[in-house]
Amino acid sequence: MIKGVFFDIDDTLYNSTVLARMARRNSVQAMIDAGLPIRDEEKVYRALLRVIRRLGPNHSRHYDELLKDLGVPWSPKIVAAGVVAYEHTKAGYLKPFPGVVPTLLELRKDYRLGVISNGLAIKQWEKLIWMGIHHLFDLVATSEELGSEKPGEEIFRYAVRRLGLKPAECVMVGDRLDTDILGARRCGMRTILVRRGKGPKAREADATVGAVTEVPRVLKRFSRG
Amino acid sequence: MIKGVFFDIDDTLYNSTVLARMARRNSVQAMIDAGLPIRDEEKVYRALLRVIRRLGPNHSRHYDELLKDLGVPWSPKIVAAGVVAYEHTKAGYLKPFPGVVPTLLELRKDYRLGVISNGLAIKQWEKLIWMGIHHLFDLVATSEELGSEKPGEEIFRYAVRRLGLKPAECVMVGDRLDTDILGARRCGMRTILVRRGKGPKAREADATVGAVTEVPRVLKRFSRG
Repeated sequence: MIKGVFFDIDDTLYNSTVLARMARRNSVQAMIDAGLPIRDEEKVYRALLRVIRRLGPNHSRHYDELLKDLGVPWSPKIVAAGVVAYEHTKAGYLKPFPGVVPTLLELRKDYRLGVISNGLAIKQWEKLIWMGIHHLFDLVATSEELGSEKPGEEIFRYAVRRLGLKPAECVMVGDRLDTDILGARRCGMRTILVRRGKGPKAREADATVGAVTEVPRVLKRFSRG
Repeated sequence: MIKGVFFDIDDTLYNSTVLARMARRNSVQAMIDAGLPIRDEEKVYRALLRVIRRLGPNHSRHYDELLKDLGVPWSPKIVAAGVVAYEHTKAGYLKPFPGVVPTLLELRKDYRLGVISNGLAIKQWEKLIWMGIHHLFDLVATSEELGSEKPGEEIFRYAVRRLGLKPAECVMVGDRLDTDILGARRCGMRTILVRRGKGPKAREADATVGAVTEVPRVLKRFSRG
């Protein structure tokens, strides 16, 4: 009997990949518009990706570092142009995938809902709040607060326990095999892989869907099976 | 002969007072909505103002500090709710005062334009870029970059010199007597006080206006006088 459903955030509830790509593209264009002396957009974009890879996605000074890497003197105008373009893009793209909100509302009638997310607690909460879906979850567990991240079992066990459930009564929904699916599976939860694009079904997941909107149907199947 | 016109940013080009008030009010409401156990909005708002006074307006952790002051355990949900409410309010209120953009476009035909602003360089640039007016100025001087702030003469002299002008050829437009007007006056510039509300005219300024839209008319008078 399934009683709890947990979701990953990035690329499960909203299109994190497209947001990041568009925001970075737009910030590069804005920096060039603000006077960046290197006007080859591809070159600057690739340099920005290298900075993000080196410093991690949550570092606060990607654009300052980018100027250093490009050998360009520090300019508050250029850095600010990148920041503002990122924020404006976020405002346009940080939206739940189509159908996510009605699906969560439907699921709330029959299941307790939670989030299990790797990342900085405030950043991950900001995404839920920005999308206006923070009240839909009974629990949000972030790796920063737990000091333990997916695919480690601890964060899954913590989330399940906090809802007063057992792993076998819970389902994890996420887009990543290596973190969401394998971690939840090891801890005894059922798993639904949200697959983007054309990849093959994953044998490791109990079910594979194309979008969160298909989750209620799969849960009914789990309950019958 | 007036050749250069310099502007303050906050409360001169946009309504910084209303933005700050609305953003803080909205962030308090959002934190209460997100579960802040103290539900007296006035009490929380006053506590927030005390935090901002203590840490300064540019500190990055006002809401964390607010929870401490209120004796509430740290909560990423509550902090993130405050941050997101602030950002959403900014998106609605960070707009030039009515008529500012056409006025700047008109002035650009006859004068060189600049900004002289106390504050963090990136923060002040972000405001100009967010409002889409950053290309309208020939120079932006911030106190952080200069290591010298209004009303000290150095930042005014620097800005004037950078445009290749003399102080007597320049006008400073700002809302604050103590910084914008007195500093510019000491350095030999003419001054226009932008007065909000009902206060008396200031004898210390060469002219007092109710909005930036009146500046072109005053400049014509200066040229005749």
